[in-house]
Amino acid sequence: MMDTILNLGLNDAVVDGLVKKTGNARFAYDSYRRFVQMYGDVVLGMKPVNKEDIDPFEAIIQKVKAERGIKLDNEMTVDDLKQLVVLFKNAIKEQTGKEFPNDPMEQLWGAICAVFDSWMNERAILYRKMEGIPQEWGTAVTVQAMVFGNMGDSSATGVCFSRDAGTGENLFNGEYLINAQGEDVVAGIRTPQQITKEGSLRWAAQQNIDEETRAAKYPSMEEAMPELYAQLFALQDKLEKHYHDMQDMEFTVQEGKLWFLQTRNGKRTGTAMVKIAMDLLHEGEIDEKTALVRCEPNKLDELLHPVFDKEALAQSHVLTRGLPASPGAASGQVVFFADDATKWHEDGHQVIMVRIETSPEDLAGMSAAEGILTARGGMTSHAAVVARGMGKCCVSGAGAIMVDYKARTLEIDGTIIREGDYISLNGSTGEVYLGEVKTRPAEVTGDFAELMDLCKKYSKLVVRTNADTPHDAEVASNFGAVGIGLCRTEHMFFENEKIKAMREMILANSTEEREKALEKLLPYQKQDFYGILKCMDGKPVNIRLLDPPLHEFVPHDLKGQEVMAEEMGVSVQFIQSRVSALSESNPMLGLRGCRLGNTFPEITAMQTKAILGAAVQLKKEGFDPKPEIMVPLVGIVNELDIQESIIRKTANKLFKKEGVEVEFKVGTMIEIPRAALTADVIAQKAEYFSFGTNDLTQMTFGYSRDDIASFLPSYLEKKILDVDPFQVLDQKGVGQLIQMGVEKGRKTRKNLKCGICGEHGGEPSSVKFCHRVGLNYVSCSPFRVPIARLAAAQAAVEEMK
Amino acid sequence: MMDTILNLGLNDAVVDGLVKKTGNARFAYDSYRRFVQMYGDVVLGMKPVNKEDIDPFEAIIQKVKAERGIKLDNEMTVDDLKQLVVLFKNAIKEQTGKEFPNDPMEQLWGAICAVFDSWMNERAILYRKMEGIPQEWGTAVTVQAMVFGNMGDSSATGVCFSRDAGTGENLFNGEYLINAQGEDVVAGIRTPQQITKEGSLRWAAQQNIDEETRAAKYPSMEEAMPELYAQLFALQDKLEKHYHDMQDMEFTVQEGKLWFLQTRNGKRTGTAMVKIAMDLLHEGEIDEKTALVRCEPNKLDELLHPVFDKEALAQSHVLTRGLPASPGAASGQVVFFADDATKWHEDGHQVIMVRIETSPEDLAGMSAAEGILTARGGMTSHAAVVARGMGKCCVSGAGAIMVDYKARTLEIDGTIIREGDYISLNGSTGEVYLGEVKTRPAEVTGDFAELMDLCKKYSKLVVRTNADTPHDAEVASNFGAVGIGLCRTEHMFFENEKIKAMREMILANSTEEREKALEKLLPYQKQDFYGILKCMDGKPVNIRLLDPPLHEFVPHDLKGQEVMAEEMGVSVQFIQSRVSALSESNPMLGLRGCRLGNTFPEITAMQTKAILGAAVQLKKEGFDPKPEIMVPLVGIVNELDIQESIIRKTANKLFKKEGVEVEFKVGTMIEIPRAALTADVIAQKAEYFSFGTNDLTQMTFGYSRDDIASFLPSYLEKKILDVDPFQVLDQKGVGQLIQMGVEKGRKTRKNLKCGICGEHGGEPSSVKFCHRVGLNYVSCSPFRVPIARLAAAQAAVEEMK
Repeated sequence: MMDTILNLGLNDAVVDGLVKKTGNARFAYDSYRRFVQMYGDVVLGMKPVNKEDIDPFEAIIQKVKAERGIKLDNEMTVDDLKQLVVLFKNAIKEQTGKEFPNDPMEQLWGAICAVFDSWMNERAILYRKMEGIPQEWGTAVTVQAMVFGNMGDSSATGVCFSRDAGTGENLFNGEYLINAQGEDVVAGIRTPQQITKEGSLRWAAQQNIDEETRAAKYPSMEEAMPELYAQLFALQDKLEKHYHDMQDMEFTVQEGKLWFLQTRNGKRTGTAMVKIAMDLLHEGEIDEKTALVRCEPNKLDELLHPVFDKEALAQSHVLTRGLPASPGAASGQVVFFADDATKWHEDGHQVIMVRIETSPEDLAGMSAAEGILTARGGMTSHAAVVARGMGKCCVSGAGAIMVDYKARTLEIDGTIIREGDYISLNGSTGEVYLGEVKTRPAEVTGDFAELMDLCKKYSKLVVRTNADTPHDAEVASNFGAVGIGLCRTEHMFFENEKIKAMREMILANSTEEREKALEKLLPYQKQDFYGILKCMDGKPVNIRLLDPPLHEFVPHDLKGQEVMAEEMGVSVQFIQSRVSALSESNPMLGLRGCRLGNTFPEITAMQTKAILGAAVQLKKEGFDPKPEIMVPLVGIVNELDIQESIIRKTANKLFKKEGVEVEFKVGTMIEIPRAALTADVIAQKAEYFSFGTNDLTQMTFGYSRDDIASFLPSYLEKKILDVDPFQVLDQKGVGQLIQMGVEKGRKTRKNLKCGICGEHGGEPSSVKFCHRVGLNYVSCSPFRVPIARLAAAQAAVEEMK
Repeated sequence: MMDTILNLGLNDAVVDGLVKKTGNARFAYDSYRRFVQMYGDVVLGMKPVNKEDIDPFEAIIQKVKAERGIKLDNEMTVDDLKQLVVLFKNAIKEQTGKEFPNDPMEQLWGAICAVFDSWMNERAILYRKMEGIPQEWGTAVTVQAMVFGNMGDSSATGVCFSRDAGTGENLFNGEYLINAQGEDVVAGIRTPQQITKEGSLRWAAQQNIDEETRAAKYPSMEEAMPELYAQLFALQDKLEKHYHDMQDMEFTVQEGKLWFLQTRNGKRTGTAMVKIAMDLLHEGEIDEKTALVRCEPNKLDELLHPVFDKEALAQSHVLTRGLPASPGAASGQVVFFADDATKWHEDGHQVIMVRIETSPEDLAGMSAAEGILTARGGMTSHAAVVARGMGKCCVSGAGAIMVDYKARTLEIDGTIIREGDYISLNGSTGEVYLGEVKTRPAEVTGDFAELMDLCKKYSKLVVRTNADTPHDAEVASNFGAVGIGLCRTEHMFFENEKIKAMREMILANSTEEREKALEKLLPYQKQDFYGILKCMDGKPVNIRLLDPPLHEFVPHDLKGQEVMAEEMGVSVQFIQSRVSALSESNPMLGLRGCRLGNTFPEITAMQTKAILGAAVQLKKEGFDPKPEIMVPLVGIVNELDIQESIIRKTANKLFKKEGVEVEFKVGTMIEIPRAALTADVIAQKAEYFSFGTNDLTQMTFGYSRDDIASFLPSYLEKKILDVDPFQVLDQKGVGQLIQMGVEKGRKTRKNLKCGICGEHGGEPSSVKFCHRVGLNYVSCSPFRVPIARLAAAQAAVEEMK
């Protein structure tokens, strides 16, 4: 967990010996001072005395340097360094009340315990939370003999990678510093030099440094220490071949001798991850299964969002850099307010919404924008979290930007940008560009395409998509979705004329009135289904019947109520009383799902007519539509039974009238615990199951997704929950119901097709669970399709082991 | 199902023959006319032609009698009767379009089919719904040879019971009519006479008929037909001894010969049910187990509500009679409005709330009243249903009362009753009395006590009660509750000063403020727990920690918000913003249950201090308190883990300080599906389980109890649901989770005590299920305790079979 390296064992006597042995008092006391400083910080937990100080020891160093009138560390004399050791020890005694330990063994045990303790510090906990590492694992401590990279110009220290961690290119690379310790490379005080000549040349080109200057001032290790470089190169090659993966290595040269400090599999970007895996596969270093398992599904996300056109980018000016909060690239006109974002978007503009911070009121605006830029907030700020949820590009916490809401301007280092000016954001790097930079959608090509082919080869589980529009369906198809696992019908109702007819249907006072309104809705619905079925020609399209509480559709504002009153020729009071009658204490547990279709069968009949009417038309036009009609929220087999018979009856009548028959299936969502518990009976009527894990999670835990925010943070903090169960499937509870549902369902109907269509369908650990319990498919949002495909393939490979 | 007796086989030829054979044309044609009439009604489904007619045939009879200027049926001549047959047949042809069938075999098949069809008519469906008879059973038809009770004065017909169906007294009784058919006894046109002399004497005394008149005009069968009576008496005795139960019998005497038409176990009141079972047991007719199984648990309800003092009742005047909507006896002052009921009640008055009809706004008033009287509405009206739910006496649909809300008066047959005047209601008979009639609470004595002792002897499951007040606890103890299965703490907070402190706690902005408010609540809570624990001395009292969403406690009215603002020294706006922050989309699935205690641990600490502080005090005073502390709404073991450690820590601190230790247990509700699914893990921390079947039903079905009204009626009508799952436990779904919870829990903790504390704990079929899955106890409202005890005993007995 804690990979700080502590140079233990120093005290006055040892340092005196070191001075005598090496004659290098400066080096000895600088090491001593560093050691006391680091030990004080990491082991003894020293805190800054004043709020404005970043580090208690740096404050002392600053003070000494100020007294001495010097600026750089290396301007300090040996006496300065000696004095620092004393001052550091005094500060430690003052703050901790204990003498600094001089006994090396005591130092060693202190350090070892500090490492073990670090497992439970806040940063470590957060890191584990983000990486999904179990708390029970614990950590280990390595005690190594010390070598020194700062014993003069024949010493050095460096960090290197066997391949490029950013692009994946098979190019040994890294940085080093002569006469330095590891911290110096990381600290950024001195400019590290490149290890390879190739790297050095590239670096110089990027920095606009001419070859003469480069060769003189920043020679590569390959040039400066050719023999040691040869050893290093051979070793990195050996290590990569041993571990069969890209290595991230640290080394030190002590007085002309190369020492290896550590090696580990290197962290890498999504692009590098895919390229390295495919390269290693081609090189014969790893086999296909290993290549699959090597790739982290969630990291594919980086490859799925729009990217900047490379040529356009080269000519662009980076204004500033914030946090890469949500990947992707976006260009648009600056707006500062949510309602402007919506308005401009409706008027056909592409906008970037710029805010100091975002809040829930900005949601609509964020949704309308191409990207979001904020001045404040980290990787887990509102803007960042929401944008990632929307799959929308976001740069957050760009501290250099000054937003003036009144003037509607944005200032970055003196550059003033006004509302309507173009900027561009790279959510994968955090870079903000002035002006418009062309973007292009992500494509599944090259290594990525090869990886996806491997997925197909090994997966048992296939991946469908959740899509309500032809556009979404197309995106998902390009990513390899083999069908639609969830097509929600309710999102289709929100356009102007449709919502009026929908409201008329809901507010109707009798079956006749309702049927009249449904007649108006029918052509709209049919047209929508026509579009989706056509775009997914030959692939199954699973359409869910109307699901949400009707209250969500009715007008809650007076103006909307007046419009409806006029539309329907009734009083506003009547509309208001109907609207208030529809309100529920717990709408999530109220009149929704198939309870709607069972209370108002005419809705089911209309939707069936629309779905199968569209399918019939397509078939007549020579297409091959494969509709599946899904009854939501079934808890009792009778609910499905009645709905199914309405669907079949309506279908038969339609087919007879049209003279064409279309094959279709009738299935159900398993999203009510009772449905899973009685799946054997439900399977008598259902031709397929789709596990709706959003609702199933809500009811299995008794959590409303809309209300969980009031206790989830506290629950995560107290480790009551390890993760948000709406993001990562709860395998022990909800998973148990899924497994039960599959087993019981297949007892009744041996080849029952089972899928999942909650948010979990795109979350890797959940997808793997779905594989293990024998689901046939998962369905997820279009941009999660490759992630789910990779997870599915990994699950299959892991099972073979 | 349909027990109408049809005299089939008559047509013109047969009737001619009958006239020739008997010489009694009047009898023959009267039988013929009855037959056509009944056949037309029951088999051919004849409907009245005009809306105001009750019966199409009666309308014809009325018309004929009017034309002939006669009033009584027996004034009609043979020709009149002949004419009626023709008119009836014509009417049938006109309405049904078919000739009346003259072929006896055709008549027979028509009748048989009509019986089978009757299984699905509305009335039959309703009856089954009420009685819980499965639809699949179907019905049977008996074809018997015909005998005639109307062949002159040596013929008769009657109905008799081997014991009194109202009181259970072991007295043969019944009614008969000379020269009549069965319908005549039921129809109420002629006054039937008593079968036994004893019955006849009692009847005459009640009717104020002197012995001379009685003996002359209304002789008993015992006196009028002594030989036949002797036969009848012997037969009833034989039949009862054969069936070992009270018999309800029908017989006919045809020209001096006794024919038995049918016998069946007689319907009876709750009182009669208990007495007959105990008498038969004492007589050695049945054994204890049979006596137990004979009693219908729900019928005990009649024995559990307050009854009128007999002497006081004898002197009272019956004003009118309505429907016996909810059993019990009540006396009080008349009020007409809900807020008056509440006000008067708060001022110490006992009130009867009188309404034309009640509506949901009247709930608070109904709850404050001793009884409810309505002018309109049937047995299933709002008033009736709500009153039964409250266990409150109600007489509904008393058509003779005239309510004048403006004048605040009530008129019954000329008697004017004003607001504040006393009336009394008998909810078991529907009688309304003028003035105050003393009532006394129901007691478990005599046969009832004996039955309860039998229950104790055979039950494995014990019965606890849900009680929040010492009064409820006492009522339940008297009915045999062996502890409190659910003591809710939230109901305790609604009194004036308490609610203020509670609101202060909820609206607090920091832990410190919250703790300050909790300090104020502590003494109130402690006092409440002291009362309950004391009254249940030596018996377990299971106290649930705070459960409902906090939103339920905060003031939603401006005035209340102003009070809180002043109380807390903050602005009204602040209070309003806190109130609105607490509102949730689905409060049922939001911040409630142990989510409260885990978000605000100081609440749990305060409640623990109050519960165990009260227990310590009682122990010091020499009592033996047995508190159990229950953590609600657990879905994850960690939730319980944290709560348990707060409770234990608080307890240890308290015990140390007080120098006294009290034994207590920490358990949990199993009311979240996930808790049942992971009961093995939860049992590691829980010392007992209490299945909260209200919430468990909500989440297993995904139904909100508050919102189910929008689709439940439709679901019951369409047979999607057989019963309301909040009233009768859903054994297949929710029950599966309970069974799983018990089994898994006991795998971890072998002797884990398991109980149930939802509404289902007092519903007989649910109690039996609880026995079968091995629960240790059920807990129900005080007035359901004996019902649950009987059901528990029956379950044990049924298992022995």
